[in-house]
Amino acid sequence: MAKNIRIQPLDDRVVVIRTEADDKTAGGIFLPENAKEKPQEGKIVAVGPGKMLDSGERAALDLKVGDIVLFAKYGGTEITVDGEDVIILRESDILAKVG
Amino acid sequence: MAKNIRIQPLDDRVVVIRTEADDKTAGGIFLPENAKEKPQEGKIVAVGPGKMLDSGERAALDLKVGDIVLFAKYGGTEITVDGEDVIILRESDILAKVG
Amino acid sequence: MAKNIRIQPLDDRVVVIRTEADDKTAGGIFLPENAKEKPQEGKIVAVGPGKMLDSGERAALDLKVGDIVLFAKYGGTEITVDGEDVIILRESDILAKVG
Amino acid sequence: MAKNIRIQPLDDRVVVIRTEADDKTAGGIFLPENAKEKPQEGKIVAVGPGKMLDSGERAALDLKVGDIVLFAKYGGTEITVDGEDVIILRESDILAKVG
Amino acid sequence: MAKNIRIQPLDDRVVVIRTEADDKTAGGIFLPENAKEKPQEGKIVAVGPGKMLDSGERAALDLKVGDIVLFAKYGGTEITVDGEDVIILRESDILAKVG
Amino acid sequence: MAKNIRIQPLDDRVVVIRTEADDKTAGGIFLPENAKEKPQEGKIVAVGPGKMLDSGERAALDLKVGDIVLFAKYGGTEITVDGEDVIILRESDILAKVG
Amino acid sequence: MAKNIRIQPLDDRVVVIRTEADDKTAGGIFLPENAKEKPQEGKIVAVGPGKMLDSGERAALDLKVGDIVLFAKYGGTEITVDGEDVIILRESDILAKVG
Repeated sequence: MAKNIRIQPLDDRVVVIRTEADDKTAGGIFLPENAKEKPQEGKIVAVGPGKMLDSGERAALDLKVGDIVLFAKYGGTEITVDGEDVIILRESDILAKVG
Repeated sequence: MAKNIRIQPLDDRVVVIRTEADDKTAGGIFLPENAKEKPQEGKIVAVGPGKMLDSGERAALDLKVGDIVLFAKYGGTEITVDGEDVIILRESDILAKVG
Repeated sequence: MAKNIRIQPLDDRVVVIRTEADDKTAGGIFLPENAKEKPQEGKIVAVGPGKMLDSGERAALDLKVGDIVLFAKYGGTEITVDGEDVIILRESDILAKVG
Repeated sequence: MAKNIRIQPLDDRVVVIRTEADDKTAGGIFLPENAKEKPQEGKIVAVGPGKMLDSGERAALDLKVGDIVLFAKYGGTEITVDGEDVIILRESDILAKVG
Repeated sequence: MAKNIRIQPLDDRVVVIRTEADDKTAGGIFLPENAKEKPQEGKIVAVGPGKMLDSGERAALDLKVGDIVLFAKYGGTEITVDGEDVIILRESDILAKVG
Repeated sequence: MAKNIRIQPLDDRVVVIRTEADDKTAGGIFLPENAKEKPQEGKIVAVGPGKMLDSGERAALDLKVGDIVLFAKYGGTEITVDGEDVIILRESDILAKVG
Repeated sequence: MAKNIRIQPLDDRVVVIRTEADDKTAGGIFLPENAKEKPQEGKIVAVGPGKMLDSGERAALDLKVGDIVLFAKYGGTEITVDGEDVIILRESDILAKVG
């Protein structure tokens, strides 16, 4: 589902679908409630063209569709596309890939 | 309508006409009311020459006239041109293309 | 009038004479009162040499004398030259050209 | 344990497992309680690809898996992977290598 | 008078002697009292070598001794040299040349 | 003592051991108590690889092990290594070399 | 006196000995008390190697030992070396050379 998400993020943004339930992620990672900002687990469903360099070229993202990631929710924008809740956020808000 | 909008944005600005009605966009995207900043859907009717690089050249925008986009209203300026309400905003305020 | 304005702006500044009356501009553009910052319409009467690049050269402005523009008043400086009220502001405060 | 940590940090981030007990670290370093921000000792278990340079290339980190480091906890994100408490933080939050 | 001012400004600074009397400048420019920051008119009596570029070279100033300028007083430093009141300020505080 | 300090600072950081007693330093320099931030005298016992330049190379520090320096304590981190109190701080916090 | 000052400033810092008495400087410059920040007159007794450029090279200072300068005290650090009160400050805090 949501394989062909109908939105294409700009710049260094990605579109993520949240995958964790409660505090334990699908991948067995525990995300403590008392952290300064509780990270979240999700799956990348779309990636932007990357940040523009001083040269005018764009630096391709390190992330690809299908990657499972831990991200800081802060700064992201939540919308619903075809009944699917997604978050649009910048690559700099992604802490790590899982797997 | 508004195909030949009579204003030409400067720098990396674009001119957008809002397309959503209520919370559901024309493209079937749901924009939750309780988001930190509710994104909006619109259609690009004019694009600027792009941001100036350190080299003095301008980086062409990723957007073109006719694109349907999701944008953060914050930072935009609303005016009315020939009876049409439009918003002038920077490309960095555009989250994603829809389609 | 004011064709040969006697002041030459520095850097990426321009000199503008306001042209709108009330809320409706000479060009038929309506500038809503309730906008965060109401934009204004004016005519460029002088342009500076442009912003200095890292290379030490200056990037010529996109604007020329005679252009009708929409601008954000914030950041500009109002003075009176030979009985003509003008505003000195930076190109980055100009939102769009009209025409 | 935690040799094959299942998360891969992005950018110039590293993943660290804390090693000190009380105020005295495993390596015999004493970390005073009354410091502005008490540093902590830990072991690097994963390193990111490095910060992106203006050229679009990435600058490899100075740190490698297995390094014992002193770090400022501020700015890091604590999570639990397979029962192991780890901290994701940026290389700039690492003060020094120990050994 | 003050032709051979005995101070040499550093960086992109200039030394200015104020020329306006009351609200009307010597050049017939009216500087409104109610402006956010009332600009002032003055004559350049010394210019610095210019701002250093990333290359290590200096970008020569656009201003020369004898220029009549409008400037924002904010940020300048007032001193008295041989009985003459002068202001040391940066070129970026100069709005425009008059003449 | 502390010749072979067991910690290696990262980036443009250095490790310093304080050398002054009271207000008068070993080198005969008097550090007034009423200064905004009283500087301190110390001896460099370890230096980092230097700050990373835009090119991805590192700029070697101007300081070497054994240098006596005046530094602003603000921003440094105090720890104890093998019974020796040391301060980890950035080269930019070092005001001058003494001697 | 203080010709061979025993401290060598780092980066773009200089060491200055104050020369003015009361409000009138040795060079006949009057420094008004009511200025936002009263500038001070002093003599350069040591100069640093200069600020590091993006290329990794250092930009030599415009100042040399013996120069009489006007400076903003703010940001400087006062110490006493061999009974001589000196101020360590950055070249950017020097407003102008006198003479």
